[in-house]
Amino acid sequence: MKPNNIYLNDEDKLIILDQTKLPGEEVYIELEDAKDIYDAIFHLKVRGAPAIGICGGYAMYILSKGYDDDLNVFKEKFFKDSEYLNSSRPTAVNLSWALNRMNKLVEEYKGDSADELRKLLREEAIKIQDEDIEMCKAISKNGLSLLEDGMGLLTHCNAGPMATSLYGTALGPMILGKEEGMNFHVFADETRPLLQGARLTAYELQKAGLDTTLICDNMASIVMKSGKVQAVLVGCDRIAANGDVANKIGTSGVAILAKHYNIPFYVLGPTSTLDLNCKTGEDIEIELRPEEEISTKWYEKAMAPKGVKAYNPAFDVTDHSLITAIITEKGICRPPYEESLKNL
Amino acid sequence: MKPNNIYLNDEDKLIILDQTKLPGEEVYIELEDAKDIYDAIFHLKVRGAPAIGICGGYAMYILSKGYDDDLNVFKEKFFKDSEYLNSSRPTAVNLSWALNRMNKLVEEYKGDSADELRKLLREEAIKIQDEDIEMCKAISKNGLSLLEDGMGLLTHCNAGPMATSLYGTALGPMILGKEEGMNFHVFADETRPLLQGARLTAYELQKAGLDTTLICDNMASIVMKSGKVQAVLVGCDRIAANGDVANKIGTSGVAILAKHYNIPFYVLGPTSTLDLNCKTGEDIEIELRPEEEISTKWYEKAMAPKGVKAYNPAFDVTDHSLITAIITEKGICRPPYEESLKNL
Repeated sequence: MKPNNIYLNDEDKLIILDQTKLPGEEVYIELEDAKDIYDAIFHLKVRGAPAIGICGGYAMYILSKGYDDDLNVFKEKFFKDSEYLNSSRPTAVNLSWALNRMNKLVEEYKGDSADELRKLLREEAIKIQDEDIEMCKAISKNGLSLLEDGMGLLTHCNAGPMATSLYGTALGPMILGKEEGMNFHVFADETRPLLQGARLTAYELQKAGLDTTLICDNMASIVMKSGKVQAVLVGCDRIAANGDVANKIGTSGVAILAKHYNIPFYVLGPTSTLDLNCKTGEDIEIELRPEEEISTKWYEKAMAPKGVKAYNPAFDVTDHSLITAIITEKGICRPPYEESLKNL
Repeated sequence: MKPNNIYLNDEDKLIILDQTKLPGEEVYIELEDAKDIYDAIFHLKVRGAPAIGICGGYAMYILSKGYDDDLNVFKEKFFKDSEYLNSSRPTAVNLSWALNRMNKLVEEYKGDSADELRKLLREEAIKIQDEDIEMCKAISKNGLSLLEDGMGLLTHCNAGPMATSLYGTALGPMILGKEEGMNFHVFADETRPLLQGARLTAYELQKAGLDTTLICDNMASIVMKSGKVQAVLVGCDRIAANGDVANKIGTSGVAILAKHYNIPFYVLGPTSTLDLNCKTGEDIEIELRPEEEISTKWYEKAMAPKGVKAYNPAFDVTDHSLITAIITEKGICRPPYEESLKNL
């Protein structure tokens, strides 16, 4: 399997899947110049922290093809474009990380051939993506070791291939399992208010050939109660030293339901999301987003009365006591997390 | 306070609030002829079982004003219209119950004055509404006895005045408390997929002057965790003999969260929803509704990929072990519910 969200096509052009058109249309677009690329990142045509980083890497290679062969002119243009792209989503850590990696290669290049440098840039961009694939694969493999063929699984929000390169994190074991001939039945929470579950997770699971059922967030309880779910798998945005996990709003509720119904609750993510400086979940600040995302976004007309307040936290913190295991590319951590996470 | 969802205005005309226009527009319409009334019920301009019954009562009075003074002709037309209206929502028990009550009055009328009969019909219709108001008031009063000024409350779906006459059930204690000078802060779950919480509950609470915050269903956990909720109040569709309660989808999840966070979970409803023939919640069949309500309804364009399955149960059953008390017009029941419900 090859990534279909960001790739160089046979003509060595940079192609991305326009995520803003999903799930209605599957539109692939070519990113040619710096403005194109900036806009694609800014307008979330490509989204998901690792995916943005990968796109940034390829972008710098693609742009370098248009630079002058004079290396001084080349480098000047390179750093200017890199800085410009970096400003498209200034808080996306993976973007600046990937751009810095490309910058470093140019800075440290001792040769005198623009073509050779372009070739090195191309290799570096592919390497960034390949490393991400390997990491996701390792997470997926570790996660899959906890699952059995035929299981019913439930996931919340989107932690799939589109946000990374291949497999993703929470969706990784499902997709890898499917590749290995296993069958799961997956329930995807739609994940209000931004509907990542309906728009992206359902799309990705369907694409991967998994038996998928979309539910509203408030239906997780009845689905679990009816015995249709044997494990819950979710991604994570940050893991504190004690195993508390910040993830998409609603994750903590799903974890409480899973505990009530005695269903294992697994968190999947790369070790880069582990923040040992953050002692507990209480140290994690929760981003509040616009109220309109609840009352008007996506709708033909407003679905809440004018003037009514809405509260729209983007994340919540799931207490470590609710988490059965935290699954990383380096291994599976079990409670007590203070120890098992430190041992990574 | 007077009902504003269904009433006779100063000119003795039947006025209803068109619920299909909420929350965007507050449109009051007059219902004049039988076709008008049929359509209003059929198209959910008036909804909520008790409200439909009340509307049916008034409707028969309004229609009787146009009947011939010859009592034989009068009665023939009356029963014909009553049967026609009854077919507008055949499964709405309250509608046939109210129409039967009006029918009985006409059947048993021994006098010879069409005008006197019209007067009696008017009184009976008002009585149906008044009785509902008294019942809702009693439920509200009993519920309010468990609350304290300043509390944060959370509710799911809509069990408010619009579905009844005044006060409603779950919203009753909040609205009654407000009238008595108390202040609550209420969190209203939007209640996917039909958004009764966003469209109706938020509207009714705002209208009643309560401090209201709309949240997505998956935000109940973070709101409870942050200490902002001191009690959960929900309505009910059916109560089994053991205290298991069927209510809008998602109710059981809210109850599990409330238990996890040690927050009292109250179910409010009239004793008419108590079904002692139904031993436990397992005997309650759950209505499955169209998948499109999740994937496309309300939206500008489909929010889920074509062909993906959706599961859309309209109700779920909350286990009696999760319920702190069941509040009826006749009193407050506590566990064990087998006994306390029977004693009603």
